[in-house]
Amino acid sequence: MSIVLGPNQYGKAENRVVRIYRDTDRHEIHDLNVSSALRGDFSAAHLTGDQTRVLPTDTQKQTVYAFAKEKGIGQIEDFALDLGRHFVNDTEPVEGCRIEIEEYVWERVSIARPDGTAQEHNHTWIRKGQETRTTILTIDVLGGDETLVSGFSNLVILKSTGSEFHDFLVDKYTTLAPTTDRVMATSLVARWRYVGTEIDWQASYDDIKALMIERFANVQSLALQQTLYAMGQVVLEQHPEVAEVKFSAPNLHHFVYDLAPFGLDNHNEVFNADDRPYGLIQATVMRDDAPPAGRAWDTVPGFV
Amino acid sequence: MSIVLGPNQYGKAENRVVRIYRDTDRHEIHDLNVSSALRGDFSAAHLTGDQTRVLPTDTQKQTVYAFAKEKGIGQIEDFALDLGRHFVNDTEPVEGCRIEIEEYVWERVSIARPDGTAQEHNHTWIRKGQETRTTILTIDVLGGDETLVSGFSNLVILKSTGSEFHDFLVDKYTTLAPTTDRVMATSLVARWRYVGTEIDWQASYDDIKALMIERFANVQSLALQQTLYAMGQVVLEQHPEVAEVKFSAPNLHHFVYDLAPFGLDNHNEVFNADDRPYGLIQATVMRDDAPPAGRAWDTVPGFV
Amino acid sequence: MSIVLGPNQYGKAENRVVRIYRDTDRHEIHDLNVSSALRGDFSAAHLTGDQTRVLPTDTQKQTVYAFAKEKGIGQIEDFALDLGRHFVNDTEPVEGCRIEIEEYVWERVSIARPDGTAQEHNHTWIRKGQETRTTILTIDVLGGDETLVSGFSNLVILKSTGSEFHDFLVDKYTTLAPTTDRVMATSLVARWRYVGTEIDWQASYDDIKALMIERFANVQSLALQQTLYAMGQVVLEQHPEVAEVKFSAPNLHHFVYDLAPFGLDNHNEVFNADDRPYGLIQATVMRDDAPPAGRAWDTVPGFV
Amino acid sequence: MSIVLGPNQYGKAENRVVRIYRDTDRHEIHDLNVSSALRGDFSAAHLTGDQTRVLPTDTQKQTVYAFAKEKGIGQIEDFALDLGRHFVNDTEPVEGCRIEIEEYVWERVSIARPDGTAQEHNHTWIRKGQETRTTILTIDVLGGDETLVSGFSNLVILKSTGSEFHDFLVDKYTTLAPTTDRVMATSLVARWRYVGTEIDWQASYDDIKALMIERFANVQSLALQQTLYAMGQVVLEQHPEVAEVKFSAPNLHHFVYDLAPFGLDNHNEVFNADDRPYGLIQATVMRDDAPPAGRAWDTVPGFV
Repeated sequence: MSIVLGPNQYGKAENRVVRIYRDTDRHEIHDLNVSSALRGDFSAAHLTGDQTRVLPTDTQKQTVYAFAKEKGIGQIEDFALDLGRHFVNDTEPVEGCRIEIEEYVWERVSIARPDGTAQEHNHTWIRKGQETRTTILTIDVLGGDETLVSGFSNLVILKSTGSEFHDFLVDKYTTLAPTTDRVMATSLVARWRYVGTEIDWQASYDDIKALMIERFANVQSLALQQTLYAMGQVVLEQHPEVAEVKFSAPNLHHFVYDLAPFGLDNHNEVFNADDRPYGLIQATVMRDDAPPAGRAWDTVPGFV
Repeated sequence: MSIVLGPNQYGKAENRVVRIYRDTDRHEIHDLNVSSALRGDFSAAHLTGDQTRVLPTDTQKQTVYAFAKEKGIGQIEDFALDLGRHFVNDTEPVEGCRIEIEEYVWERVSIARPDGTAQEHNHTWIRKGQETRTTILTIDVLGGDETLVSGFSNLVILKSTGSEFHDFLVDKYTTLAPTTDRVMATSLVARWRYVGTEIDWQASYDDIKALMIERFANVQSLALQQTLYAMGQVVLEQHPEVAEVKFSAPNLHHFVYDLAPFGLDNHNEVFNADDRPYGLIQATVMRDDAPPAGRAWDTVPGFV
Repeated sequence: MSIVLGPNQYGKAENRVVRIYRDTDRHEIHDLNVSSALRGDFSAAHLTGDQTRVLPTDTQKQTVYAFAKEKGIGQIEDFALDLGRHFVNDTEPVEGCRIEIEEYVWERVSIARPDGTAQEHNHTWIRKGQETRTTILTIDVLGGDETLVSGFSNLVILKSTGSEFHDFLVDKYTTLAPTTDRVMATSLVARWRYVGTEIDWQASYDDIKALMIERFANVQSLALQQTLYAMGQVVLEQHPEVAEVKFSAPNLHHFVYDLAPFGLDNHNEVFNADDRPYGLIQATVMRDDAPPAGRAWDTVPGFV
Repeated sequence: MSIVLGPNQYGKAENRVVRIYRDTDRHEIHDLNVSSALRGDFSAAHLTGDQTRVLPTDTQKQTVYAFAKEKGIGQIEDFALDLGRHFVNDTEPVEGCRIEIEEYVWERVSIARPDGTAQEHNHTWIRKGQETRTTILTIDVLGGDETLVSGFSNLVILKSTGSEFHDFLVDKYTTLAPTTDRVMATSLVARWRYVGTEIDWQASYDDIKALMIERFANVQSLALQQTLYAMGQVVLEQHPEVAEVKFSAPNLHHFVYDLAPFGLDNHNEVFNADDRPYGLIQATVMRDDAPPAGRAWDTVPGFV
């Protein structure tokens, strides 16, 4: 028996880079949280502390900010590709990498004109505050195998009817009452694996999100599992550039509050929004002929 | 010398009550975080543990949920008044109270029709995710002195130009360079004290927020202090029902990243959004003939 | 009627300064979070944007780090006095200030010797992780009125018996069952106002904390109010340098879990530790001849 | 092409169960956060909403609390095995599961006796506040393949000397200066995979943690990678029951503050503890003959 180095990576996490475009009076803003991690043969650094082959995490940070100017920031998938290809192609010891980007969307403020119409402001925004758009680029081997897993986190969505839960398995620890009408809410994390890198990222993102929201709203739900499957299915049907969709969906319980002690009815009107525990449903919807994912999902947190 | 009980209050904090109105297919949702605190002569509870005069915090919780049905939830100021007047008027030992409510706003999802137009959904929402609307009711004495301090927290707003900072005081520890063009951003907490309780709360809130945003966007800022003052001033000028406005504004620093080592210019294009430390500006703008605030501000956190 | 500037202050919040003493091989570490806020006549900055009298928040930050070297960091109360006196005495427009310091305590790691005894390490520590020690210095007027409010936050303490709650006031919304034996837990925030500035800060802190813990543990509690009063009382009895003690104590509910559906007894053995809502008790214990507090408590968050 | 259900699991996350043993006056406390997730053929629930084979997440919660009484809570690994075996063996559709447990350690308070010695209290504790002990049980197939990955999260450890970083790879974006003496700090997450289930869990945990701390303290570090490797190596050398160790170590940067503008030296005495970005090192140390891990690491967040 001997002791060996196993899988490893290192990088700089959470570079909070903001890029303003100010070529005209109407500015544009891109607000990102960028994390890089490099892979390759770094065994000397681990075994003997030899840093000869190690590009410092500080350099990775400098590169993120320099590229914000040199390459510019448009779609986060493109920025991830710019960074990832640079690290893998231009740094000899680096054989693969993981680039994760979160984007915080800002919405332009509108100011009322004297006539009551609204005018968008040139250089002032409020942070939109809903879901965070995400992408994770995995490059597995030098010169190839680029996989982008995009998606969003923390889309907090709720429906106040159109959700049932009944006819479930019962054992000796089951006390839950079945229901044909409940509140269903989640703080949804959705991630989808793209095939290829020549995609209209913004159009894909916007339409995938809209499709998911429509299904969440309109499917009569018998379980959160069924809703998620329907959401993934419609995305795969309409987006050939997507091979696979994964969801992690906490069931944010809204318990009907017991008002009987006070002689009050409560027909799904008053709820306690509870914090913990919460149900947690994780599911994958995929094409049966999806190309292999390689290591693309290995370090995507929160999925099965 | 003897040891005595000083100021005290007790209550139930953070009741997460959600109220759905479902009288028609088009539901409405109100999502609140309600905290109550009662004041009065509770010295026996402190000195000897005698609970005879203590309405349990559990009862305060039950009351919040019961009132969500009995009184209903519309404007948070009205719900605060319903709760506060009940506790003070209907519970003999209670002489005053503090009711704090936070409201999380949800926005109705829109679903695309086949013809491309959007239709609002009847019973599905996404949490809006921007500022939290707040109110704090103080009732000081039985049967009178009701003061409402309303406002919002965590409105994250940024302007990418139109902000300067120069000609400041310099001492031996000053290294900061003056600037005539910088990013200014804050996660604004604003609170304003209303005079009276017969107010169109929603209309006041909407207009006050819009006025503040307009001033933030359009005032050429020489300092965050000046911007805040202008924001408070316009509210007082146009809203006679407001006696006083307080702001707590962290200066969310966006530092111009030094790209010179890489031979790159950076004309306010690439920024590091730093976490800590942050400037913190707290200011009050008020009418010189404002009626006394009593204890209304005493337990409003984060203000000078 | 005219509009005027009311109370205001500005400063740099959350400077995370770490000071290592390394004069011998046995290092010492002080890990602080320092916030400064200056008060005075800064109306020109608010009204016209004139910064002539404004010492930048960046300079306040530089001063904190410079003083960590020039003055050194020992007791947080002394460091607060160093900073506060400098700002008020050495900067003409500054008439008062607020210096808040949080201290994160580290404990030296112990390494086992071959003989099984433990040896403290010279330069390695683990963050202690319990309460955060705090102080807030208020200087109200140039050359005088220095008040220190010290204490701690987030001491998470629990007793599994020795706590009762019964014979409370009952109204129509009361459903709570009385109990003579419950778990009582809190994440305690305690603050006490010192009289004077020539005090053995460490000795006071250690003994006050020990006294509070002893009372929490040994008083048979009829209510959290009674326990807090006993804790404040003993501090005032034994510490003449303390004028006043304030507590903010969330009641971290541990609900006895209902195991009856499974035919299981539960004699205070299995609990659900709930998150929200929570009871919140705030109380003051003071000397009846305590000198006036001035503005010392005005901006201490979380107290009545 | 057709669309299919991929990997999925569902369960109840973050059951906050507290178990008190009170058979004698000297109570014991166990404070856990338990999450369960079940796996099997649940395709009907996803495809058609048929819940016939679905044991509700509410039932999983009830089981956790019931087992806290029926089976009792001792070592978290044993409690995970109790739960996991029950779900897999006693519920027909369940073919595998994941049980994750976090344990919050409490330390008994000590009260000073009149003679100055300390006495441990029978029923009062303070939350210890350091690392959270963790375990994740994976059962892959009915009746076999039980793998426990134990460890801890958030052990915040710092050394103020004995750490170097130099002779690293330099490219055009590298501006970092080499150093032979720096502060090294991390909030360590460590996880190790056990072989077998008949282990003295407490003894293993205590010794593994002590070995890691000793290596962190005493290894002259040329890089965090080297330190982590040494920490994993010593554990594998001395603990045959461990097959593999994984670390996720944020490099909590303590930057030497530039005091030169103030004419002050700073020989590693005054630091700014920065929040973001941070280096992030993830590494595995393993036996070359370790048995396969199966799916044990698939859903352990934060590791490569």
